[in-house]
Amino acid sequence: MNSEQIKFDENGLVPAIIQDEASGTVLMLAYMNAESLAKTLETGATWFYSRSRRTLWRKGETSGHVQAVKEMYYDCDADTILVKVNQTGAACHEGTFSCFSRRLDAAAEQAEKLVDPDKVYKEP
Amino acid sequence: MNSEQIKFDENGLVPAIIQDEASGTVLMLAYMNAESLAKTLETGATWFYSRSRRTLWRKGETSGHVQAVKEMYYDCDADTILVKVNQTGAACHEGTFSCFSRRLDAAAEQAEKLVDPDKVYKEP
Repeated sequence: MNSEQIKFDENGLVPAIIQDEASGTVLMLAYMNAESLAKTLETGATWFYSRSRRTLWRKGETSGHVQAVKEMYYDCDADTILVKVNQTGAACHEGTFSCFSRRLDAAAEQAEKLVDPDKVYKEP
Repeated sequence: MNSEQIKFDENGLVPAIIQDEASGTVLMLAYMNAESLAKTLETGATWFYSRSRRTLWRKGETSGHVQAVKEMYYDCDADTILVKVNQTGAACHEGTFSCFSRRLDAAAEQAEKLVDPDKVYKEP
């Protein structure tokens, strides 16, 4: 098992980037401990460790929006995992395909501020 | 600045996923503090915080393999950043385009073990 080479952090976790294999879309980042990594490798579906709830969770266990694992990689420092998946439904609990739906950079911010649609379009 | 909404962790850091915009390849994961995030937004090139060296670094400052920022996003929890870049040269210090060049999953491991090319092809 190559997973023995993974370097977990001081909390026993490793960040896992989840990417939709077909589209290349980066869907989310979540954390795995050794047990969730083993379950992911064994079952072919993604399992994570919730830092807030301090428990394992299987992606899609309530929503049905499961992630079928296609390929898994680790990086040159062995402290990050990349999981390529076939995403059913939406990866994000907000209903979007990807959790990365908010622009951070200035270009987008400027574009958003050009007009305020509530003021521009709703007044007679 | 949308960056004010970013939730840095207890060490003042946020993980940043770097993706090549043209190919969709996930190149690397590195960490930003508030200063490196600000420099990235200001300069249009990626700046990170090295946890081992405890210093800011500009990607490509020694190798010339800079990353020109095209788009930046943050996720629904505002605790991870996605940076889409135009990668010059190789993202990885090992010379590969992506840092994620090692297979973790069992399928690859089995494939690698089917033959040992040193034994199969080099003996008469």
